[in-house]
Amino acid sequence: MYDLGIVHTSIERPPAEDIAELRQFGVATIHEAMGRVGLMRPYLRPIYSGAALCGPAVTVLLQPGDNWMLHVAAEQIHEGDVVVAGCTTESTDGFFGDLLATSMKSRGATGLVIDGGCRDTDDLEKMQFPVFARAISAKGTVKATLGSVNVPIVCANALVHPGDAIVADNDGIVVVPRARLRSVLAAARKREENESAKREQFAAGVLGVDLYGMRPALEQAGLKYID
Amino acid sequence: MYDLGIVHTSIERPPAEDIAELRQFGVATIHEAMGRVGLMRPYLRPIYSGAALCGPAVTVLLQPGDNWMLHVAAEQIHEGDVVVAGCTTESTDGFFGDLLATSMKSRGATGLVIDGGCRDTDDLEKMQFPVFARAISAKGTVKATLGSVNVPIVCANALVHPGDAIVADNDGIVVVPRARLRSVLAAARKREENESAKREQFAAGVLGVDLYGMRPALEQAGLKYID
Amino acid sequence: MYDLGIVHTSIERPPAEDIAELRQFGVATIHEAMGRVGLMRPYLRPIYSGAALCGPAVTVLLQPGDNWMLHVAAEQIHEGDVVVAGCTTESTDGFFGDLLATSMKSRGATGLVIDGGCRDTDDLEKMQFPVFARAISAKGTVKATLGSVNVPIVCANALVHPGDAIVADNDGIVVVPRARLRSVLAAARKREENESAKREQFAAGVLGVDLYGMRPALEQAGLKYID
Amino acid sequence: MYDLGIVHTSIERPPAEDIAELRQFGVATIHEAMGRVGLMRPYLRPIYSGAALCGPAVTVLLQPGDNWMLHVAAEQIHEGDVVVAGCTTESTDGFFGDLLATSMKSRGATGLVIDGGCRDTDDLEKMQFPVFARAISAKGTVKATLGSVNVPIVCANALVHPGDAIVADNDGIVVVPRARLRSVLAAARKREENESAKREQFAAGVLGVDLYGMRPALEQAGLKYID
Amino acid sequence: MYDLGIVHTSIERPPAEDIAELRQFGVATIHEAMGRVGLMRPYLRPIYSGAALCGPAVTVLLQPGDNWMLHVAAEQIHEGDVVVAGCTTESTDGFFGDLLATSMKSRGATGLVIDGGCRDTDDLEKMQFPVFARAISAKGTVKATLGSVNVPIVCANALVHPGDAIVADNDGIVVVPRARLRSVLAAARKREENESAKREQFAAGVLGVDLYGMRPALEQAGLKYID
Amino acid sequence: MYDLGIVHTSIERPPAEDIAELRQFGVATIHEAMGRVGLMRPYLRPIYSGAALCGPAVTVLLQPGDNWMLHVAAEQIHEGDVVVAGCTTESTDGFFGDLLATSMKSRGATGLVIDGGCRDTDDLEKMQFPVFARAISAKGTVKATLGSVNVPIVCANALVHPGDAIVADNDGIVVVPRARLRSVLAAARKREENESAKREQFAAGVLGVDLYGMRPALEQAGLKYID
Repeated sequence: MYDLGIVHTSIERPPAEDIAELRQFGVATIHEAMGRVGLMRPYLRPIYSGAALCGPAVTVLLQPGDNWMLHVAAEQIHEGDVVVAGCTTESTDGFFGDLLATSMKSRGATGLVIDGGCRDTDDLEKMQFPVFARAISAKGTVKATLGSVNVPIVCANALVHPGDAIVADNDGIVVVPRARLRSVLAAARKREENESAKREQFAAGVLGVDLYGMRPALEQAGLKYID
Repeated sequence: MYDLGIVHTSIERPPAEDIAELRQFGVATIHEAMGRVGLMRPYLRPIYSGAALCGPAVTVLLQPGDNWMLHVAAEQIHEGDVVVAGCTTESTDGFFGDLLATSMKSRGATGLVIDGGCRDTDDLEKMQFPVFARAISAKGTVKATLGSVNVPIVCANALVHPGDAIVADNDGIVVVPRARLRSVLAAARKREENESAKREQFAAGVLGVDLYGMRPALEQAGLKYID
Repeated sequence: MYDLGIVHTSIERPPAEDIAELRQFGVATIHEAMGRVGLMRPYLRPIYSGAALCGPAVTVLLQPGDNWMLHVAAEQIHEGDVVVAGCTTESTDGFFGDLLATSMKSRGATGLVIDGGCRDTDDLEKMQFPVFARAISAKGTVKATLGSVNVPIVCANALVHPGDAIVADNDGIVVVPRARLRSVLAAARKREENESAKREQFAAGVLGVDLYGMRPALEQAGLKYID
Repeated sequence: MYDLGIVHTSIERPPAEDIAELRQFGVATIHEAMGRVGLMRPYLRPIYSGAALCGPAVTVLLQPGDNWMLHVAAEQIHEGDVVVAGCTTESTDGFFGDLLATSMKSRGATGLVIDGGCRDTDDLEKMQFPVFARAISAKGTVKATLGSVNVPIVCANALVHPGDAIVADNDGIVVVPRARLRSVLAAARKREENESAKREQFAAGVLGVDLYGMRPALEQAGLKYID
Repeated sequence: MYDLGIVHTSIERPPAEDIAELRQFGVATIHEAMGRVGLMRPYLRPIYSGAALCGPAVTVLLQPGDNWMLHVAAEQIHEGDVVVAGCTTESTDGFFGDLLATSMKSRGATGLVIDGGCRDTDDLEKMQFPVFARAISAKGTVKATLGSVNVPIVCANALVHPGDAIVADNDGIVVVPRARLRSVLAAARKREENESAKREQFAAGVLGVDLYGMRPALEQAGLKYID
Repeated sequence: MYDLGIVHTSIERPPAEDIAELRQFGVATIHEAMGRVGLMRPYLRPIYSGAALCGPAVTVLLQPGDNWMLHVAAEQIHEGDVVVAGCTTESTDGFFGDLLATSMKSRGATGLVIDGGCRDTDDLEKMQFPVFARAISAKGTVKATLGSVNVPIVCANALVHPGDAIVADNDGIVVVPRARLRSVLAAARKREENESAKREQFAAGVLGVDLYGMRPALEQAGLKYID
């Protein structure tokens, strides 16, 4: 966020098996397992139906209307990485299209999260290269001003460090700091089991006010039932 | 809208056969049949392609970031009801997800209209539980502050009384007050017939300026044709 | 833009074979071939997945909440035309629905681009009549105030003259002035060939920083790699 | 909201002395005294610095880009009334300017709240005629389509009945239903006294966590202080 | 709009006395005199209270986050000119600040209208250099990509040719094409006289429904008065 | 950002004399001195004209519609501190009003930056307690859910650590990390001198294209002057 003109070439990534397990869970579950922090703002949306991704972050700090640093970032991608790009200002320009996607895919990238615009969306869907973006726009960008790669960035109001795990699906995008991944996985597993049990009860017609024991609190808060 | 901490347990619903007939018409037709009132603001959108619903409203007044009243509302649902939730402030948080959907569905609910956010969208699509929301967000909500159930509410700028008929499809969401349902049905039938006749003429190449006899009014307004 | 109450009945259109060739290219490619001008603002979106169109513009200047001029415009449509409608103010009302689409289609129209709202979206998808709009809304419009047809207009911040070629797909909408169509086609062809070559190299793992020879410029700009 | 083409000529207004007392309180205080309901959405803003108003509502239901009903409403204004105008769709057009303000002022109006645009803002400031609007726009409107006067309306997501008390200042706009005015006044008085006492304590350096006795709840919630 | 890399050094401006007369009228009056066309979108706002300007346009086509062309435009400014800048994409960056204002003022500029951001707003107010902008932002811009000067542009959805008269005040910004200036002035004069007469009548309590003779049309439209 | 339920009671602040010097510079200058990073998004605006502030950050992580942590933060304020509050979701509710301002002021606070709403704005202006907020809203908030105090937060897309220097004026809000403050001050001083020299030249009519030596680059980029 505060370092321009820098590329960190060595970043630590979470173990592959942890990423593999993380991929089993949806964003809503992981966000709950995180204690409800680490969610990007909901204006980032998948560019095609069914887009989803999970992997370690290669971070990019972009300048408005300038995608130079995405090319620089491509060289830093390892198999399975997710490129996460913030921008110093709000821009809907098409920073990313099918050529960069081809390049990043050939380097092993799993997808892109960008607080900016994206283009060539039909091609990206054909390639099944998932992108989460703030807009779709055919407007190309220049290559004139330095940003950075693999520095801490803010993307759609979430702080992302290189190597953090990123999970995105139709519900949004969540950042799991590397150091917390194990405990988040444990919490997600527990939550999922817990939810399965609840789901069965709800399906059987049990009410949330009973399942969660809300009636005393509602009464104390003064809720009145009127026939 | 002005009563907090209240649950009305007895509401009057329209006859089931009227709801069944209403379901035949699209929102655009019903809105015209209403005389062009009762439409919610277009920022509410279906969370999956093809979502549509029709039924009597169980109304909910929510507090921002708090879904307590949705659990309270679940108990008031009758077979076929649509839950309609307004909020005292603008909030995109995920008030509603697959557990509440499972609960409401088991109670007979037909779908949800909410001036707030929704999550677990993939699950909701799999369940084919239609939701119309202002945003998609994984952010969960608390259960701390009372709102109300089955009081008159405002949802996306439309006034909704419990028991009003709600129709939603890809064109938007329209509220049909219970007392008007019969006359709206009659008007919708007439309009549909009328439109079929017009559609044929348009398909045959007849122009709207001729079909609607607009030429004199256009001339009087001063329209000039220049070759 | 500055002429109200006017309909130009004779406009020049580009040769059909040029339109046919233009249709081969995507919006992003054509916009690059234009030198990155002529793009409408990205808030105009297709009303259904897969919508795309290409054809000469019949232009319409609308008044807010009033679709009178769309009926007037229908008479001016030639086979293959695209109707392009700007509005004197921002309005999300449903200016256009299945009846007007039936009428315009029967006159040969290829689709609609409108800086306003659209309704009957399910019918329009069934008809495969592509519309690019700023909103979906069931709210109907009146027929009370004159605008114009086939005058220069501004639509979503782009200047459009009658007879300009319009291309729209999921990436946006671009305007190609009639007089430039040939040179744009040439540039688009060249770009496409160029991109194919690049795509192969990117797929083979060549980096953009090498393919575009960016390393010296990056170094000169002061980019630092840190291990 | 659901009745078009209607003007109610007899509405009940709150007693003048209640309005006079209500005027003493700010919107934030009254909204608290209401139990935190009845607030319009914050996108309505005063058109000049220092604008404020308080009075009984004459309600108007407008059509987009059409101010016919504001002229009809002028005839229904009594000394001290506030005109409150909702619109069937979102419109920023300039429905209201200095001529209508002169007319309404001569009839005794205290100000205007409008979910639409306003113009002649410099003149309105000179006249000290307070207006709360969603936009400032020079675009004039037509007089072509009926709405209603003195029916229940929704304005900026708040339900307003004719004769409700409306209070607006820089913090927003709140609706006080006529039947609740007395109890709201009592609650506002109590709150104001209560706040004065608290203000003194806060000014003396007492902390909210102590004044409100929050420490046990914070501790129970698990808050941890780390040196 | 469609020409990049061009500076037109000779443009025709309206006679100074016409500009001087135009300055007498407000934007709302001129916009009416134009027949209600030529208004920019209302998201452009004055950066300080009381900002207003009137003069011939020197037009600038900007690239996002790049103010190079504003420096190029400075050389083309004649005494009294207004700089009007559109941008190929939506950008809130601070393209303009006190240095450029000092430069443009020394060349005779009267003010700036920009579909982008502005900074150094306190200094600009002290200098009384009026700016109408879409945002206020401290973010500086680069000088890397060509746009154009004195070509036709679109600014906030309005078409502007170099030499068109631009008038801006708190109500918005209107473009008067050079060829129409005389007739617009005549219409503005007439309108102003007409409004004075009406204002007196309104002040005396005459209603718009009577002054404009609306009662028959209201009755015919079906308006019902209910006691 | 990622730690909930934590209050850090010991934070390092920059030397008072550095803050005093920083206060001399405007936000635009400091942002340039930072190398154009650290700016908050421009949707945060001062709640009254002339609001400005400078001081070390006490950071607060809020939950939507809940101001509990602002009371907790009050205890951590040292003379001269600026409270900076981010929120886990977008909320315009009135988290802050005159009571909290009185409390924070009595503890020595210089002002507030909040990615949320604010109320009691007239009182705050009278107190001259500067607040930069995303909205003005009378809606009060609850005290139910833990956030944190003095953890790293994201506010309006900028990363803020406790003890960072915060500067805000009408141009926006910039974050200066504590470790960089000295070098930023040096750069700001140099820039200011540099700008004074330039300002004189611009005032004397020298053009930016000459002062910055832009003509060769413009020519090389292909700019064409046409008479």
